[in-house]
Formats: sequence, C-alpha cells, structure tokens
Amino acid sequence: MFDRIAILGAGAVGAYYGGRLAQHGRNVSFYTRSDCATLRQQGLTVQSLRGDFVLSAGQVKAFDNPADIGPVDLVIVTLKATAKSSYADLVRPLLHARTAIFCLQNGLGNEEEFARHFGADRVLGAIAFVCINRIAPAAISHTAHGLLRLGEFNRPISDRLRAIATMFKECNIECDLTDDLRHARWEKLIWNIPFNGLGAMLDRSTDQLLAAPGGVELIAQIMAEVVEGARAVGVTLDPALIEKNITRTYRMGAYHTSMQLDRRAGRALELDAIFAEPLQQANQGGAHLPRIASMLDYLRLI
Amino acid sequence: MFDRIAILGAGAVGAYYGGRLAQHGRNVSFYTRSDCATLRQQGLTVQSLRGDFVLSAGQVKAFDNPADIGPVDLVIVTLKATAKSSYADLVRPLLHARTAIFCLQNGLGNEEEFARHFGADRVLGAIAFVCINRIAPAAISHTAHGLLRLGEFNRPISDRLRAIATMFKECNIECDLTDDLRHARWEKLIWNIPFNGLGAMLDRSTDQLLAAPGGVELIAQIMAEVVEGARAVGVTLDPALIEKNITRTYRMGAYHTSMQLDRRAGRALELDAIFAEPLQQANQGGAHLPRIASMLDYLRLI
Repeated sequence: MFDRIAILGAGAVGAYYGGRLAQHGRNVSFYTRSDCATLRQQGLTVQSLRGDFVLSAGQVKAFDNPADIGPVDLVIVTLKATAKSSYADLVRPLLHARTAIFCLQNGLGNEEEFARHFGADRVLGAIAFVCINRIAPAAISHTAHGLLRLGEFNRPISDRLRAIATMFKECNIECDLTDDLRHARWEKLIWNIPFNGLGAMLDRSTDQLLAAPGGVELIAQIMAEVVEGARAVGVTLDPALIEKNITRTYRMGAYHTSMQLDRRAGRALELDAIFAEPLQQANQGGAHLPRIASMLDYLRLI
Repeated sequence: MFDRIAILGAGAVGAYYGGRLAQHGRNVSFYTRSDCATLRQQGLTVQSLRGDFVLSAGQVKAFDNPADIGPVDLVIVTLKATAKSSYADLVRPLLHARTAIFCLQNGLGNEEEFARHFGADRVLGAIAFVCINRIAPAAISHTAHGLLRLGEFNRPISDRLRAIATMFKECNIECDLTDDLRHARWEKLIWNIPFNGLGAMLDRSTDQLLAAPGGVELIAQIMAEVVEGARAVGVTLDPALIEKNITRTYRMGAYHTSMQLDRRAGRALELDAIFAEPLQQANQGGAHLPRIASMLDYLRLI
C-alpha cells in the first residue's frame, strides 16, 4: 500500500523513524537540505534503546530537492513547524492523486495547513512520545520512549491508518491508534509547553528544571493551564496526566528539549505551533492562561 | 571626618568607587575574599569613561578578613545582597562608636538589615546609576553613567551626608543627594527589575532585549508594574521614568547586567533584594504585579 515513502525534513525525528523503515527494507527517500551531503557520503548512524543500527551511504537515498524524489505513496512530514510557509511548495512535487500526508510534528495547526492546500482527506498525523537528539550530521541518538500515536485528521481510525501502523510495527516502531488526534495533540502539549518552554527560556535541561526549588510546582501549574486550555476547546484531559508526565520526565535524565537546542543553535523556535496557536484556541474558548501567555512573551525575546 | 574608610566587598562597584577614593589619596582598605591575593600582587586596574587609572600593589590595601582592618570611620558596603546573613559578622570588626555604614547595594532591605544589628543612626545608602563590570580579578571596566544618589536612612539630608558627597566629588565621583532614599531605591528598581531579571532569565544583554520583537513593550510593561508597586507603598514615581530608562539603556550598548553575569558564573542571584522584597512590600500595599511575580518564579529555577 505504501511502496514509496518520503521523509520530508530529516532532522532527529525524521531520520530516526525513516531510518527504521529503511532498515527494514522499505523504500524511503529523505529530503533534507542541511544533512543531504553527509547522508549521501556517510549514511546514517542511529544509537537507540530499541537497537543501534547503521545505514550505509548506499542504503540512504537523500535529496535536497523534493522534485528529485517525485510522487510517493506516503509523505511523512517532520519539518519544523517554523517552516509552515514552505510546507506546500515542499510537499507538492511528492504528491500523486492518492498520496497520504502524515504529520509527525509538534504542536497545533500543521494538519490544518496541509488540509488547506491539498484537501483534508490526504491528511493524517501522529504524536511522537520520544526523546531523540541529533548528535552530529547524519548521527542521532534515541534515548527514551518511542511511541507514536497515530490518527486520521478529524476522522475515525481508517484502514489506511491501520496499514501504516502495521508497517511501523514490522519496522520496530512502537505505535498505537487514536480516534481523536486533536486530543492526542493537546495531551502532548502538557509536556511540550512546560519543558520546551522553560527549557528554551532558561536554557535548562529537564532534570535541572525538575531539581530546582519550586520547579516541579511551577511545571505542574503550567501543565494545569494546558488542561484548562484543552477543556476550553472541548478536549478533556485527565488531570492525572500532570503527575504522569512529571514522573516520566524524571526517567529521561538530563534531556535537552528540541526547543532548548534550537535556542542554543540560534535557530527559530516553534513558538506558533506549541504556544501561540494553543493559546489563541484556548482564549477563543474563554480560557485565561496567564503562565503560558507570559512564557510566550519571554520566549519571543530570545 | 572620614579618615579611615573600608570597602566591604570589592566586586566591580566596590573596586571602582573605592579605587577612586584611594586614587585621590584617601585611606581605603578593601575587604574581598576572592580578589585579595590578586589585589595585593597586581594592584587594581580601572578602565573608565571618567579616566583610566591604575593603583599599584603598594597603593592597594587588601584584606581577606575584616578583623585585620579594624575600626574605620566609614564602611562602604558593596556586598552582594545574597550575603545578607553574613552582613553583621563582616561589619562588626569595622565599627567604632560613630562609624557610619553606607549601603551601596541593589534592591530593598539592606539598610534595614544593618539598622537592625547596629542601630538606624549609623546607616546611610546610595543608589549607583552606573555600568561597571569586573573583567578579570582586580581589573574592572566602567562603561557608562556613574552617578551616586546619596541619602540618609529614613532621615533628611545631614551634614554627615554632605561631607561624604564633598569627599566623593573631590575624588572624581559624580553624586547628588536625596531626602528620600526609599524613593531612589524604587526608582532604581524600574531599571533593575526588567533588565537584571530578563537578562538573567533569558541570558540576554540589554541591547538584545531592546532589539527583540516586542522587547521594548514588554520591558515597559514590567516597568509600569514597578511604578504601580511603588505607588502601593506610598512612593510616587513619575511614569516618564519608563521612557527615560529605556532611552538611556539604548546608550549602554551590549551591557550584561550583574545578574546575567552571576547566572553565567553559576553564582547566587540577588533575587530577594531586587524581586522578593519589593514584591512582598507591594503585595502588602495591595498591588498585584503578575509580570514581576512570574519573573521571580522563573528566575528561581535557574
């Protein structure tokens, strides 16, 4: 069903999941501008708690222009959400009449952007509960978790979605399915908003934030605002998720969130998808989220 | 009147003003633990917009124990406000019956601490409107401003205060006098709270904060909260000070506040004097300062 697959944006997440698919014999093309030459010359090196692996240069098909890949059956989008204005131009050359567009991105508003350009029917998404960092060009490290939660965009679970899940599992990718992708996106925000936000704002790793006096209390307050924001848009999140997310973060050790790493590298932060869009939706629903609003104010100064 | 002077805590501010006094022939003893050996061996090097100068090793009397200095006529305290619990023990050996204690420190609560231990009559204070950084042990750079605003602690201007001002002016130290030291302290907080706070929180220099999109607006909002907090404790600050402080900060260039430098060096931040004490006083006066309160929450995680 998905003979040809393209990974659009082979950062840490794209390289890991695309690498797993290629490792298990799937026909995967990687689009990346920054790491294209390195992937072609050195292949891809992955350290992972689910098993290290290396793809040789001959096993990695890397491209710096989507037009050189051409139409595929499944586009897995792992572009940073800061690149939103370029989504359409990058995806267009990869599409045939039935190509599925699979958003493996953070925050809110990404599926909507693809639906607007190419029709909602094509669009699916996933939340990655995973710790993966790029440690060098074409070298990544997967240090914790790994579950993908897959869902159709505003539709129930489909055969297409089940086929993707089956393929993923055959390729050593842990996943489950959800009928409510929006719920899953807000659930992920419980973690992303405090840890990406404070991590980038203060330049602190997750273990430093948890160890600071008052840190856990503040993180829990921010998480509670996410739960409140979700409620305002009709998404019910179990308040027990707060405790659960804090507990699992302790197990991550000294984890540097992607937003903290972006800050350190002077790259744009995914503020719209992770902060501005959720805040706007929550405000429209009547919620008042002062901590998250103030974090966004501070993050915009970086 | 002030034959013997001790500088208690010769960081950047203490070294600069103490250095000016010594340069002009005053009998100054410096207490510093960290830089004592360097001062004794190398003397003190000052780059300053009011004139560079060097004190040779023989011209600098440096001590790492106040008991070795003994009683003086004037103690100029430039200790970090994080060292509050050690104030009394450090000052005690420097006192005779009429020794004046002169607080040249940031934030609120320092004069009160000395008054509590040694009587309010001894205590005076000053606000330093100045940019000085320590660039190496026993080497400092004075890059902007320099005015000291001098006041008695909860009393009108006195002859003693006028004598200090005369001495300072004779030593090339710009200063003026105030009948309302408390007003001057709150006025200084208009600058310290946003620039020290955001600078340390986000690890950004003053020019970076001003240049960021939305930066000036956010800084002005924080300053407006300081004005509101001051009003709650009976101190009227001219709202025009907001514009004035922002304008003069542009002229400072790429200035790293002392709190940002403390953060970078992993030293304790002066959060009690600059944030917690003003917040508590303002709250008791009925003011609600959400931006400043949230900054303190975030700063405590560092």
